[in-house]
Amino acid sequence: MTSRTCLSIILAAGEGTRMKSAKSKLLHEIAGLPMVIHVMRAAQAAGAGDLALVIGHGADEVRAATSSGGGTESFVQAERLGTAHAALAAREAIARGYDDVLVMFGDTPLIDPAALIVARDKLANGAAVAVLGFRTPNPTGYGRLLEKDGALLAIREEKDCSEEERKVTFCNSGLMAIDGKLALSLLEAVRNNNAKGEYYLTDIVGIANERDLKVVATEASYENALGINNRAELAEAEAIWQKRKRREMMLSGVTLIAPETVFFSHDTEIGAETVVEPNVYFATGVKIAGNATIHAFSQLEGATVASGASVGPFARLRPGADLGEKSKVGNFCEVKKAKIEAGAKINHLSYIGDARVGAKANIGAGTITCNYDGYSKFFTDIGEGAFVGSNSALVAPIRIGNGAYIASGSVITEEVPDDALAFGRARQKTLPERARQLRERRASAKK
Amino acid sequence: MTSRTCLSIILAAGEGTRMKSAKSKLLHEIAGLPMVIHVMRAAQAAGAGDLALVIGHGADEVRAATSSGGGTESFVQAERLGTAHAALAAREAIARGYDDVLVMFGDTPLIDPAALIVARDKLANGAAVAVLGFRTPNPTGYGRLLEKDGALLAIREEKDCSEEERKVTFCNSGLMAIDGKLALSLLEAVRNNNAKGEYYLTDIVGIANERDLKVVATEASYENALGINNRAELAEAEAIWQKRKRREMMLSGVTLIAPETVFFSHDTEIGAETVVEPNVYFATGVKIAGNATIHAFSQLEGATVASGASVGPFARLRPGADLGEKSKVGNFCEVKKAKIEAGAKINHLSYIGDARVGAKANIGAGTITCNYDGYSKFFTDIGEGAFVGSNSALVAPIRIGNGAYIASGSVITEEVPDDALAFGRARQKTLPERARQLRERRASAKK
Amino acid sequence: MTSRTCLSIILAAGEGTRMKSAKSKLLHEIAGLPMVIHVMRAAQAAGAGDLALVIGHGADEVRAATSSGGGTESFVQAERLGTAHAALAAREAIARGYDDVLVMFGDTPLIDPAALIVARDKLANGAAVAVLGFRTPNPTGYGRLLEKDGALLAIREEKDCSEEERKVTFCNSGLMAIDGKLALSLLEAVRNNNAKGEYYLTDIVGIANERDLKVVATEASYENALGINNRAELAEAEAIWQKRKRREMMLSGVTLIAPETVFFSHDTEIGAETVVEPNVYFATGVKIAGNATIHAFSQLEGATVASGASVGPFARLRPGADLGEKSKVGNFCEVKKAKIEAGAKINHLSYIGDARVGAKANIGAGTITCNYDGYSKFFTDIGEGAFVGSNSALVAPIRIGNGAYIASGSVITEEVPDDALAFGRARQKTLPERARQLRERRASAKK
Repeated sequence: MTSRTCLSIILAAGEGTRMKSAKSKLLHEIAGLPMVIHVMRAAQAAGAGDLALVIGHGADEVRAATSSGGGTESFVQAERLGTAHAALAAREAIARGYDDVLVMFGDTPLIDPAALIVARDKLANGAAVAVLGFRTPNPTGYGRLLEKDGALLAIREEKDCSEEERKVTFCNSGLMAIDGKLALSLLEAVRNNNAKGEYYLTDIVGIANERDLKVVATEASYENALGINNRAELAEAEAIWQKRKRREMMLSGVTLIAPETVFFSHDTEIGAETVVEPNVYFATGVKIAGNATIHAFSQLEGATVASGASVGPFARLRPGADLGEKSKVGNFCEVKKAKIEAGAKINHLSYIGDARVGAKANIGAGTITCNYDGYSKFFTDIGEGAFVGSNSALVAPIRIGNGAYIASGSVITEEVPDDALAFGRARQKTLPERARQLRERRASAKK
Repeated sequence: MTSRTCLSIILAAGEGTRMKSAKSKLLHEIAGLPMVIHVMRAAQAAGAGDLALVIGHGADEVRAATSSGGGTESFVQAERLGTAHAALAAREAIARGYDDVLVMFGDTPLIDPAALIVARDKLANGAAVAVLGFRTPNPTGYGRLLEKDGALLAIREEKDCSEEERKVTFCNSGLMAIDGKLALSLLEAVRNNNAKGEYYLTDIVGIANERDLKVVATEASYENALGINNRAELAEAEAIWQKRKRREMMLSGVTLIAPETVFFSHDTEIGAETVVEPNVYFATGVKIAGNATIHAFSQLEGATVASGASVGPFARLRPGADLGEKSKVGNFCEVKKAKIEAGAKINHLSYIGDARVGAKANIGAGTITCNYDGYSKFFTDIGEGAFVGSNSALVAPIRIGNGAYIASGSVITEEVPDDALAFGRARQKTLPERARQLRERRASAKK
Repeated sequence: MTSRTCLSIILAAGEGTRMKSAKSKLLHEIAGLPMVIHVMRAAQAAGAGDLALVIGHGADEVRAATSSGGGTESFVQAERLGTAHAALAAREAIARGYDDVLVMFGDTPLIDPAALIVARDKLANGAAVAVLGFRTPNPTGYGRLLEKDGALLAIREEKDCSEEERKVTFCNSGLMAIDGKLALSLLEAVRNNNAKGEYYLTDIVGIANERDLKVVATEASYENALGINNRAELAEAEAIWQKRKRREMMLSGVTLIAPETVFFSHDTEIGAETVVEPNVYFATGVKIAGNATIHAFSQLEGATVASGASVGPFARLRPGADLGEKSKVGNFCEVKKAKIEAGAKINHLSYIGDARVGAKANIGAGTITCNYDGYSKFFTDIGEGAFVGSNSALVAPIRIGNGAYIASGSVITEEVPDDALAFGRARQKTLPERARQLRERRASAKK
């Protein structure tokens, strides 16, 4: 990558009223990450060391959500007078002097760093302005990029197009790379003598051409320019993101039997040879090693799964679930903040929270770690090779020793030492013929 | 809408043998509602005050399913001699005298009221007959609408088309609006001098033209004419319906992360700012307020969910589940006929049926309301702020008082007063070294 | 079908490095069946009595997985010197003398027997070689089939095509039917005087033409030639397979509300009038009768479901689950190796394994058959009309008699005779005001 310094100005001041949301449009998520952060990460991946966020509507909320990134500063655009005006809200940052200035949009979360790098390369090769364009068979409504001999002559709004220009299918995405030494001067030259009285960023193409500067267009795919204005478009962008991610996963050696039913988060990691059955939802923070199996109808969040482990079907791993090698968490099981050591099995209808399950321990169906007493959470420690009989309740804080054995149906409230047998259940009483008598009484009562 | 009176004749006498079903084709459902009722509702939405159902195959069954609508009468077509003959089965209704008569089909559930209104408007503006057409790039097999100067000259069956006519892409949907004063006369003029010896509704186009009446075609989308003949087409119609509904939901402010995995019923209502995660199935009768969250892998039927409530993942709400504000029903939980008051939590592996759970009560993992004794269902009343420890069985009828506390693993059979502590579990016994001895005995037995 | 004898040579020696898998590419599955077995079955369905597998990479593994089929022998291609060389690895089989020889590929699992039969028919009608082709609007990269007057003149690799030939959209699938008496002679005539020094199967087209033999092409759909080289293509083939199977199911009278969310295995059987709700996963070995209902979010494997039975939502049927007529297995229930007799109900949160549940028995919510003691599995036998109260644990081996009644929350360890009532639970103790005292103590401790 070039060694040129770069500032990315991200225009994020729009109101997004069509989202019908109290929350800023920019904070609606794609793959579990606010869309504006997708844009910020793309800018950084394209080499922008500093980011200038131009915010307006929902400024505090957006600032709070984006503040963690180093090198990010925000500028408030108080009045909304057009894109050039918005970019100039970051005047202070531009004036600091960068080789390249990227002007981007906070609501185009699918922007690809590679497309930005191509535009920056144009600057490195002498262009003053490089505009990102895309081709579409159906350009109606878009501004057209009018080129001649490799130079971009103008961005023409559709309503101003001639018959011939209207046939052009190369359209304006809105994104631009501008030579950092010229950016301020170009932006300040923009005038608002148009119908809406706004300052349009696109005007700098004409201004730069008038100054005999080199202006070019670069081509990227349509998705790079996909702006999100309502929740249907949000879902469309999510779908494109997921499709990309699924393909990437499969090509890296992960089997997805029905990729269209598997949903990833921005940070999901899965090793090769892992099989993911249909209908699995990976919320944020999941890391799966290779050679694991994630069965159908499972949901994972903040969980770590080691090699050879088996999850689901119908399993829910919550944050802090940490499954060891060849461990197993089966159907209708929930695991939260618990280390399940190698080879341990929790196969059916169990809740394991705030716990350790030792290696090769076997947790019977319907086991519940009673970790909450209504006031605080407590820890359950189950030793290596322990056997917990079905339908047991382990009342935390509690320790079940290595090799200990809990009889089915027990409520365990006191420590069970290593290799001890514990039970906590009533003796059975059987009353012969009583069921028949009850049945007959019922039947006669109905008469 | 026009003040003209309108009768809709819905032809619903077909056998539907390709459905391979003992049930009438018309009663197969789209979005949880029989397809014929979709058609009836569209007619009503287009202003048809009276509906005449022409039924044949499965007449009783169809009559029973459609009888609830006021203004609906049914006529039996005993012999099946073509569409004009079928429409004349409703002769008595037509003779009553309406301004407009719509002839529709019981197996085109996606018919859009707007398309019918456009056709009725043509009648209001002097047309005697208005035929609904659709355009398709691949018209093979459809009858072509032959127009000249805005008039519909003929509906030509494909086999009778000239080379030139075959290229026409404007096709006959079969649906018609007919001037009510002329309808009977036009229908009665239809003759059966054709290969099959049937009376074709389409013939009235020629008859009306011969009488120098004004005949026009109106254009609607293909979906309006989508007839269901087998279960693959049923699924196709369902998919189109779902796609429309999802889009409508998203544009109204509901977030659907993966819209293609969310299934609605005809009557699902969801407020703005509610988030629906992937894989949620809304059966009939569900109302969700705004700002709620429906997590992945949930199924809801006949349930009401208030603002700020959280459902799932892996939750099942059955009819009569009524979730209060900020209440929570979590994974592997089933709620039936139960009022879950504000802020109450049922987080894991529980069955709550025939019950009230008071505000801010906490129901531990694995709690079961034992509402059925094999003969009758009984009620469980859990007070405000009560704490029910994990793996408890509450044997109904029972009352757990406000602020009461149930120890984990209890079987509760008697009322627990307000603020009382109850337990119903055996004391634990622990036998040191016994698990080891058992293990060793097993091991030696194997030798 | 023709009475001609037929050998199918299946080339299965490729390395499949792009799968990124330790497992042979050929053993990756489509619909739960290794892809090479799909190919073998297609060959058999097209009348190939004998199969010759040419294997290389992962030979032992592939041989083991395919050995069960009678009439299958395998040949190892030690060096990989091209497709003609590979086919000649089966020289011994070819020399045995067949009327027809089919040359197929182990990684094209969607090959349709009908397409193979068409090619064999060409041989029966005098062709020496029949090549399977497909048409595509985008032929780039494929070899073109150059025909004249119904004869196949050549298969031209794209790089060797003239401007005119490049426009041909009829492409080579690679599959061929060869006259068995000529096959050896044609294959042995292939030379490796080309850039890669390989022996290409396609060369026999030219060789046969030089000998004035009749060479033809037959057209099949693209899918027949879809070769799997990575896991994205594997998923693509799976998707096509599923789409076909869903359509076939629907046309046979099975309702799939959302077919795109239902996944079948190669051997799934479902009777007419059964309704399958969205999101159901049929793993291998499932047979469902007609008139059953499989509710949403269910997974079935190795299970049998009789007429009128209801499964799910959120049910898991594992191998050996055998559901009788009108029986019901409901939400968050797992059934394994268990006969659920007619009319029995297991509605909520239960695990039933290694068991029989008698006709009309009712299993309460949260019931667990404790079938495993840490060493062995034991059987639970529940009699006809028995009532098992909620949250019970049945410790196997155990017998619950006909008409017996188990009180809720019981742990049952001893046989319950017919018509007896059994309970095994502690008496409830209630401590008035104690919950309030605990609450107040907590609150003051926090100060």
